[in-house]
Amino acid sequence: MSGTVPQPPEPISLLEGLATTRAIRRFRPDPVPDADLSTILWHATRAPSGSNSQPTRFVVLRDGPSARKAKGILARSFGEMWQSKRSDDGYDDGSGTTADSPKARLARTMDRFVDRFEETPVVVLACYRRHRAPSPIEGASVYPSCQNLLLAARALGYGGVLTVWHALVEDELREVLGMPDDIAIGATIALGRPEGRHGPVRRRPLDTVVFDDRWGAPAPWAMDPNGTRFTSGGPPREG
Amino acid sequence: MSGTVPQPPEPISLLEGLATTRAIRRFRPDPVPDADLSTILWHATRAPSGSNSQPTRFVVLRDGPSARKAKGILARSFGEMWQSKRSDDGYDDGSGTTADSPKARLARTMDRFVDRFEETPVVVLACYRRHRAPSPIEGASVYPSCQNLLLAARALGYGGVLTVWHALVEDELREVLGMPDDIAIGATIALGRPEGRHGPVRRRPLDTVVFDDRWGAPAPWAMDPNGTRFTSGGPPREG
Repeated sequence: MSGTVPQPPEPISLLEGLATTRAIRRFRPDPVPDADLSTILWHATRAPSGSNSQPTRFVVLRDGPSARKAKGILARSFGEMWQSKRSDDGYDDGSGTTADSPKARLARTMDRFVDRFEETPVVVLACYRRHRAPSPIEGASVYPSCQNLLLAARALGYGGVLTVWHALVEDELREVLGMPDDIAIGATIALGRPEGRHGPVRRRPLDTVVFDDRWGAPAPWAMDPNGTRFTSGGPPREG
Repeated sequence: MSGTVPQPPEPISLLEGLATTRAIRRFRPDPVPDADLSTILWHATRAPSGSNSQPTRFVVLRDGPSARKAKGILARSFGEMWQSKRSDDGYDDGSGTTADSPKARLARTMDRFVDRFEETPVVVLACYRRHRAPSPIEGASVYPSCQNLLLAARALGYGGVLTVWHALVEDELREVLGMPDDIAIGATIALGRPEGRHGPVRRRPLDTVVFDDRWGAPAPWAMDPNGTRFTSGGPPREG
């Protein structure tokens, strides 16, 4: 590689982007230029919200004085969340003891992600003012923009991951970042250039998550295309 | 137009798809073929969820016996929600009294949407089992897939709208659709072929929703590209 500015990737199609955007937690240290961040956030904000109310505010944390403090607080929270998940989900048992298993590989990626969280090139907090009592449906006006953000990042050759691991330290973050008390943090999104190789998107077989006409009723027309990769436990498909 | 099968649209790029997908509430009566629905739902399910837990289940309502009942229940709820919104938000006051104003046009679209809700070609309920007390962050594992669903629909020439207007009738829907009590309905998504012309995506100016380093701090690098259309109240941008 020469020292030239990285070229933007070839445009990918909308469907290909939806199919291939996966969680990225290993980043190169390269900063994200302002113009790319602007493009990513602009596309994030094209997402829908109830009555087009656009409640989401994006706080971008890079290397500023508040960002460094906030990243430090988040690093602690992410470390604790991961240790708790590691133990609850048995990452050090069963196939987790085999260095090359998917479980062990994910554990190593998570170790690195939380250990180096403060070096994450960009952390975006997706925030919003809460006008009513907290409700599960308020996210309908917030998380679509987070997904657009990740997809736009993918279009420009970046990767990231959507988390709610700020939950333990939301009050501390509000204080360090000067947020009013009625501002909720809906998501913490880590962004950067992906480092290394990343596996495919893996999901449950489509016919286990789609029902036709009523709950639990099979949808035989819901078929995974050839080449679909499944989460462990999902049956491979013939043909 | 001949009577031939509609051809799929030319592929659009990921960024263009993100920029141009808008809420569609006027549908042609054409049914959505199984294969297209399968493609749309498959792309929906590529979206991320916490720990890749994939909690979302999609109940597809078309012309089946339960679907017809559920659409009838939803039509009533949507009608009530719209009447209440119409009055609360003053759709019949001010510029709403001028037939050609954006407000009056939106009101007509909403009238038609709720009046003909039962004819909506496809209604998808995005549901999930709730394992913990209801929380605003649970949507982080549900709404990204809803946004992917709308984007995939756009890629295939369909349009739709994400709503939470089932909220008034969730218990009735659960009963008619045979859903266990611990299943939450996160979103009701209407889908079909768009009818007529639709305006551009309009949003607030980017620099009013992006903050740099801390809450409320300007992000002068966050710039709307030329040609961006703004929600009413947003200042037009020079140059």
